[in-house]
Order: sequence, then structure tokens, then C-alpha cells
Amino acid sequence: MSRVRVHNLLVSSDGFAAGHHVTMETPFGGAEALVRFFDGRVIHGIGGFAGPVTADHAFFSMWGQGIGAEIMGRRKYGPQYGEWTDDGWMGWWGDAPPFETPVFVLTHHPHETIEFANGTTFRFIEADPAEALRQAREAANGQDVRIGGGPSTVNAFLRAGLVDFLHVVVVPIVLGSGVRIWDDLGGLEQRYAVESVTTASGLTHQLWNRVDRA
Amino acid sequence: MSRVRVHNLLVSSDGFAAGHHVTMETPFGGAEALVRFFDGRVIHGIGGFAGPVTADHAFFSMWGQGIGAEIMGRRKYGPQYGEWTDDGWMGWWGDAPPFETPVFVLTHHPHETIEFANGTTFRFIEADPAEALRQAREAANGQDVRIGGGPSTVNAFLRAGLVDFLHVVVVPIVLGSGVRIWDDLGGLEQRYAVESVTTASGLTHQLWNRVDRA
Repeated sequence: MSRVRVHNLLVSSDGFAAGHHVTMETPFGGAEALVRFFDGRVIHGIGGFAGPVTADHAFFSMWGQGIGAEIMGRRKYGPQYGEWTDDGWMGWWGDAPPFETPVFVLTHHPHETIEFANGTTFRFIEADPAEALRQAREAANGQDVRIGGGPSTVNAFLRAGLVDFLHVVVVPIVLGSGVRIWDDLGGLEQRYAVESVTTASGLTHQLWNRVDRA
Repeated sequence: MSRVRVHNLLVSSDGFAAGHHVTMETPFGGAEALVRFFDGRVIHGIGGFAGPVTADHAFFSMWGQGIGAEIMGRRKYGPQYGEWTDDGWMGWWGDAPPFETPVFVLTHHPHETIEFANGTTFRFIEADPAEALRQAREAANGQDVRIGGGPSTVNAFLRAGLVDFLHVVVVPIVLGSGVRIWDDLGGLEQRYAVESVTTASGLTHQLWNRVDRA
């Protein structure tokens, strides 16, 4: 059975997982301080880069393993609001987005599918979490589905009870404002077994595995 | 520059990384108690198996990332001693050994190369660590080389100063006897930066990154 997984969800000590104001200059909405603790070079594995291999890398590198599709919110895909314009926007990631699978972008506004040579396709759908997951599962062809963020999207899937595995990275900083990840999720831990590991960098990696699943 | 890496090297509290007596029935030489702490299902990643994803899995799953060739000792390959006989032995791993790269087996006795459909080839060479590494690097085509064990082989490469990254898993058991990993390596830590992380299972993962390397 394919799992629904969340990876590398960076959360500040005060519970924020992104900033409020996503613009062309601030893809993380003003929460860039969070992202400094992340090493995007290892999401496909620890090969091919110079420098030490850290425990954080071990956790970060699980991101792509066995993933067949991603679901992301519109705010992760780009800074635009409302109807799509003909601005040529194809996401933040250039000609080779790192996903390399079908990616379902949740939006209320229709948009043509965008395909890349490396296997990434952006498909734009209006759907609630259950229906988005149904479509992503079909595309994933037996592999797992990643809920890619942003935090509002992860929160919606958690509230819908659809997340089997959640990798939270608690970052020891205080952001003060932003998008909260834990809203309306009181008691969530009762449905998960949680393992916590703290690394030399000061990050705490929490692995939440759902216990009420067959 | 391609790195030389060791992964998932399980070591008991008393410094043993395998048993002495490798036989057909005891591939780990009597140190099977060590191996019980290892989950081989995740060496190619956390996809495709049921059950919780643990912090140990995050570390174990780095094994294959960016690896282009392995070097192993004869004792890892099989229980035989002396001249090879015509017994049809092709390693412990059946028709699809998990390596999926060229594997250089160190032996004093000549043996024909064995090829598998999944990309694994066993090539049998008589060479010191530096020469074995030269050949493995060439085969790895720019990717990293893994020193796959057993402990005598890892020890030889450590003594030769050839290991860039070493992932030790300290297992909280006392074996009492076996093959020691740390012999003749006094002060080794001075050439490495070491990060240690202990997980809920009681394992301590140590990541040794060489600091005297460009």
C-alpha cells in the first residue's frame, strides 16, 4: 500500500513553517531564516557534493526515496494570486525541477499541464485533499505520495487524517510570525508514534509514523 | 572528486564488527547478534516496505547513494578458503545482488568475472588497498566508492588513510569475541570530525568525515 509522506518540514520553535508574504524575492514568505538550516543538495542523496556528510543529510535525503507523485499548494508553486496570467511562470525551479515525478498543484484556477524533460509534470487541479490524493496515488503507480507543502497544504492533509509519515525538523529559532503548522490539530500525537533525534547542528528531527493504519 | 565511503558498519560495545568463523550457516561468523539491529530493506531507500520509518532507516539508507563501485574482502563474498573450486558459488545474494555496480573482491586466487542482469559484477583482484581503489575509482566513473567490508578490509583501508567517510553504528551489545575493527588505528579520530547521534533503538550512529582532505 502506498504511503502518504511529508518530508523536511522545517518548523520554528514557535510553530511557524513559512512566512506570510510569498513574493518573487521571498519564496518562503519572509521565513528564510528557517530555510538556512536546510541543505537542498542532498534531497536526491548524499552523492555528488563536496563537504562532510552530516546526520541532517541522512534525514533530508529520504525526501525522494520511493516517491511517485507530489501534491503541493499553489503558494509553494509561485507568488501569484487569482487567475493565472500569461507570464510564462513555470515554478521556482527552472528547466529541471527536482521533483522528477507528476506534481499536482492545488488551485481554484485552471491552468494547462506543464511537462519537463526530467520527468517532472505540473498538473493543476481543484480538489479537496481526498480527491487530490486519489489522483496522485493513481499517478504514483504504487509508489508513495509526498505532500510537498506549503504548511497550509500539509495542515489540510493532517486535518483530513491522510498523512501516514511526517518528518518534522524543529529549528531552534523564534520567527515571531508566519504560517502556523499545528493549527486545529490538538491531540494529533495520539494517532502517531513519534521518534525524536537531535543532531549536532541543533536541529531536532521528529519522525511521526501513523499507528492507526493497517 | 569521488569519495571513499564506509556505511552501516555495525560495531559491538567491545569493538567487534564480525565473528571469526564465517561458514555457510553463519555468514557473519557468529556475530549474528550484531546484524539483528540492521534493516537491510532500506539500503536502497525507504520506499516499498511496510512499517514505520525510523531514524535508523535514515542512516541505513545512505548506503547506495551516489555509489559507483564497491570493494569487498573475500570473507564478505563467501565462506571459502584457498583456491576457488568449481562449486558454482556466486556470493550470498542470489540472482540479484543488491550492489548494482561493479564489485571488486579482494583475493589471492584468480577467478572469472561474474555478471548479473541488475548491473552487479563481481571482479576478483589481487591488490593492495591503493591499487584496488584505483581500479574501483575507474569503474565508478566519477561516483563514490564504497568499502563494503568485512572488518578486516575496512581496517586495512583505514590504516592506509584512504577512507573519506565512515558511518559506524555502535550496537549496545557485548560480543566477547570476533574480528576487531579498531586494531592499529590509535588516534584515528584526529584525522576526522565525528558527529554522533543516538536513536530510540539504542544505536549510536557515528559519522566520521575526514578533515585533512581538500
